[in-house]
Amino acid sequence: MGSSPTAGTMEISDLPTPAVVIDLAVLRDNITRMATVHPGTRLRPHVKAHKCTSLARLQQDAGHTAFTCATPRELIGMATAGVGTDLLLANEVLDPQRLSQMAHAQNTTQVTVAVDSQDTIRAAAHAGIKNVLIDVNVGLPRCGCSIDDAPRLADQARSHGLEVRGVMGYEGHLMMIADKQERREKVREAMQILADAILRVGGDIVSAGGTGTFDMYDGTAVNEVQTGSYALMDTYYSQLGLPFRQAMWVLGTVISVSPEWAVIDVGLKALGMDHGDPSIDQHKVWFCSDEHITFSPSDRVTFPNIGDQMRITPAHIDPTMSMHSTAFVVDGDAVIDQWPIDLRGW
Amino acid sequence: MGSSPTAGTMEISDLPTPAVVIDLAVLRDNITRMATVHPGTRLRPHVKAHKCTSLARLQQDAGHTAFTCATPRELIGMATAGVGTDLLLANEVLDPQRLSQMAHAQNTTQVTVAVDSQDTIRAAAHAGIKNVLIDVNVGLPRCGCSIDDAPRLADQARSHGLEVRGVMGYEGHLMMIADKQERREKVREAMQILADAILRVGGDIVSAGGTGTFDMYDGTAVNEVQTGSYALMDTYYSQLGLPFRQAMWVLGTVISVSPEWAVIDVGLKALGMDHGDPSIDQHKVWFCSDEHITFSPSDRVTFPNIGDQMRITPAHIDPTMSMHSTAFVVDGDAVIDQWPIDLRGW
Repeated sequence: MGSSPTAGTMEISDLPTPAVVIDLAVLRDNITRMATVHPGTRLRPHVKAHKCTSLARLQQDAGHTAFTCATPRELIGMATAGVGTDLLLANEVLDPQRLSQMAHAQNTTQVTVAVDSQDTIRAAAHAGIKNVLIDVNVGLPRCGCSIDDAPRLADQARSHGLEVRGVMGYEGHLMMIADKQERREKVREAMQILADAILRVGGDIVSAGGTGTFDMYDGTAVNEVQTGSYALMDTYYSQLGLPFRQAMWVLGTVISVSPEWAVIDVGLKALGMDHGDPSIDQHKVWFCSDEHITFSPSDRVTFPNIGDQMRITPAHIDPTMSMHSTAFVVDGDAVIDQWPIDLRGW
Repeated sequence: MGSSPTAGTMEISDLPTPAVVIDLAVLRDNITRMATVHPGTRLRPHVKAHKCTSLARLQQDAGHTAFTCATPRELIGMATAGVGTDLLLANEVLDPQRLSQMAHAQNTTQVTVAVDSQDTIRAAAHAGIKNVLIDVNVGLPRCGCSIDDAPRLADQARSHGLEVRGVMGYEGHLMMIADKQERREKVREAMQILADAILRVGGDIVSAGGTGTFDMYDGTAVNEVQTGSYALMDTYYSQLGLPFRQAMWVLGTVISVSPEWAVIDVGLKALGMDHGDPSIDQHKVWFCSDEHITFSPSDRVTFPNIGDQMRITPAHIDPTMSMHSTAFVVDGDAVIDQWPIDLRGW
């Protein structure tokens, strides 16, 4: 973006668009609601959903000291910022350089990486990583070893001098099951795999879960839940009727109005598009281009004016945040802070 | 990404993944082919497709001195890098700060901005912009005034002291018509609007077009073509059988292999997803997650190994480039240069 006025003296109307805006009161409320259900280390917030150490600090202030990361960059950035005391890379990595950087971060924080193969175990051990979780497949066709391979991999890890803290799994294929009871039953079945795995692997961590299933772990073996999207939300997760509200939008400016449509300066380079088009309250989105949304009012009557600002709600929060360098924190119409989105990249 | 070895001594196998790699020979061939059809200022390459001044410099070396930009940041970055002598912002902008920055760039280069309303004309004039094009709608429901409003807007612009250099329009709705003859006929019809507009507006520029229709302007009023994707290409445009080859991929590393699928560390945060999933030669893409693609070999037999590097072909080049900070330029397996993707943001 261009140079911006100083936060504190700024109103939303001063913001250069497209701009990520975060409603601090709603964000705090989402964080409090989740911390009530999963206090302290029962929650391991996933920073991939926001990539922002300033936001992670609010999660830490709510009592969470353990965090989940998807990339080395996220973990190293969290360690550098001094947020969290127990950082998990819930992903497989082979690159010796970035593993070494994460090992270096062990000087200031506890670092644990997921492993699901002999190769990832060797790479972690060689780089000097101390702690691992055995990543066990719980039904999503992605990373994670089979339950039958888990004990052997744990033994291998220990033979390389690694501390095996327990197991993790991600039931991402269950997050969006519309029927809540069915979702709960499927989660219970999937988590039985981790219950078996922790008995065979050893250790004391059973880590899993996401925002869509955040309240479905009672009576399972899971003792920490990896939710990310709950803090800011998006239209995809809002379909589930969760107790978290939209706290983030991409602010845009209407730049062109035609008799049947209008155009706003927020396009697909400013919006995660893998879950589909964004939404605009009381308007119909026609389509997104690189730098534009073409849209019209639902009532076909009350067209915006050129220069009007509007809030766009993204369909997927994670990739949207990763497209922006700054989040503007707002209280009503006042811009009260700017947070660097400082965990972008790999 | 993490810290990288110095280019020149680097092989592709040293690259931290995900990494944008550009095959310099193919890129040069694409640029040469286009410059043969549209030499010099007949082509106004669109930098939004690559957001990289180093790449734009190659286009300049091929004889093109006029460039198209989609955002103020792109235009200001091109001016700062000293690439191009005639920069067009083919988009409407109201923000006084960024308009002023573009006006400041007029000290070193010619700057022209698109206008399609009284508001955008006033904003440009107020900021000290000297040159405009009247943006005329040619059928795509996005920016651009109606042909009947164009003469009035041109008069208004001149009354504000702006030089009206001519007209532009973007027939983006015609780029992907599968039948070439039908595409050509529709382009001819749409460009007739610009032929009428330039007569009524005055000026000498008629600017339009894109990669999908690059060779369809003979006999039309169009005297400069705004193509971008031809330089690097993507799977979306490659459906059209154009004479340009894929020159860019996102390199990934296989991080997990299961009996029925494998996982590579290139996900939807590293890929423009609005045109759908990326492709992997001789493999079937199952789905993309934030940091992963789950895939399998087409023959269901020859699975990759953990640690193998593979090239992912994005479905849409423009947003893919804007997700990365660096492009690695390769000649075979040697990394011969690193280009900052320096025009990102707004």
